[in-house]
Amino acid sequence: MQRYFVPAEQFAANTVTIKDDDAHHIVKVMRQKIDDEIIVSNGNGHTVLAKISHIEGKEVTATIQYELEDKTEANVEVWVAQSLPKGDKCETIVQKCTELGADKIIPFQSVRTIVQYDQKKMHKRLERWRKIAKEAAEQAHRDVIPEVTEIYSWKQILSIASEADLAMICYEKEDAVGIKDALQRISLSAAVGESEKKKILIIIGPEGGFTEEEASQAEMEGCTSIHLGKRILRTETAGMVALSCIYYETGEMGGK
Amino acid sequence: MQRYFVPAEQFAANTVTIKDDDAHHIVKVMRQKIDDEIIVSNGNGHTVLAKISHIEGKEVTATIQYELEDKTEANVEVWVAQSLPKGDKCETIVQKCTELGADKIIPFQSVRTIVQYDQKKMHKRLERWRKIAKEAAEQAHRDVIPEVTEIYSWKQILSIASEADLAMICYEKEDAVGIKDALQRISLSAAVGESEKKKILIIIGPEGGFTEEEASQAEMEGCTSIHLGKRILRTETAGMVALSCIYYETGEMGGK
Repeated sequence: MQRYFVPAEQFAANTVTIKDDDAHHIVKVMRQKIDDEIIVSNGNGHTVLAKISHIEGKEVTATIQYELEDKTEANVEVWVAQSLPKGDKCETIVQKCTELGADKIIPFQSVRTIVQYDQKKMHKRLERWRKIAKEAAEQAHRDVIPEVTEIYSWKQILSIASEADLAMICYEKEDAVGIKDALQRISLSAAVGESEKKKILIIIGPEGGFTEEEASQAEMEGCTSIHLGKRILRTETAGMVALSCIYYETGEMGGK
Repeated sequence: MQRYFVPAEQFAANTVTIKDDDAHHIVKVMRQKIDDEIIVSNGNGHTVLAKISHIEGKEVTATIQYELEDKTEANVEVWVAQSLPKGDKCETIVQKCTELGADKIIPFQSVRTIVQYDQKKMHKRLERWRKIAKEAAEQAHRDVIPEVTEIYSWKQILSIASEADLAMICYEKEDAVGIKDALQRISLSAAVGESEKKKILIIIGPEGGFTEEEASQAEMEGCTSIHLGKRILRTETAGMVALSCIYYETGEMGGK
């Protein structure tokens, strides 16, 4: 069933209103009619099954049937910090990391970042990435749209490392510690009585990788320097591989 | 250091000859000169460090210094069978699966496959995918170029399932068995005295997924029906996630 994210303020007690592009999608693309069912989420964990009750112009009203209990979010919170790659690769990264389950995507500038955006272009890019995140979250049947933050500086990345229960930096010269070693060093399940999920930060460099100085600065801020296997991954692939590994370790793929 | 795959017959006892596009790349793109070093592989596990000794026209000759011992191939052999996706998504799939480490990529037709290629177009596509596999293998510093096979029928896919030590089909209606369950059911390390790696086959459906009949036919041929987590993955993402999980389980990412 098609899933739509709408702002929380469009949820009333018993109904939810879908506007603009999403309303257009319901009526014109999916050709849905009164009494057809859709899934609507506020993008923050509140997801309902609703029945279309009214269609007028560019607005669809649906009556909430019940809250969906079958949540699709992971049991850890993962932030992907991605040094800006060349071209439109960041679009792929946002799409794929959202699809896999990332909770926050943090584009940032590091020493070897090549692209430079002026204020106007940066604003446009961010808007585009956020739209991609929303659409990818809908398609992946997520309950949450990951936040795509403003573009951070390297200093800002270092400053958030301590907020995570586990912060890792993918460093191409690291050959001793794999992501599995780092993930298995700490307990990733929330402690009894704790409602907050454990937070994992994964930091990925640009095409040219990190400088030695950046790697050691990150380690000084408590990041574990890790590798993702013996083969050289492109910058746009590292995030997806890291997310797959994290969810594998934390039990989403079955197993013990 | 730049890595080139050349056909085995271009290797002599002490020298190796690089021709055409790769020679052009060495001379014109990388601007390498006599005595510069390159890595050359026969694409089948024989990888050497060589020193350029002669450049003439579209041919570069290099003197073999030593065999590289630091192999980058995984300790399991993975075949990715991918039902043909729409558009040029198969290019991304071939590139990413090669980068991650797949040993064989098998495009195939299933009931819900939408694209149809005539003989001529199919030939062109295969040529293109094979070129992408070669380039991705070079970039990822692999010792082997994965084979991209002809396009298989569904029957052919079923018939190769028994050749694998573990055959898995990604089925969207499967919610009990995750890929980790399947991977942990059998021993994936080669037995003592055995030189052959264990073989894993992973079968991925097209955008519309597999029919119930296809899923049950696969199970009858010994495939384990698995899921890759709670979120809905696009067909072009499933292979990368499965490969990440397989290499995570088999020890490439560190850990026990």
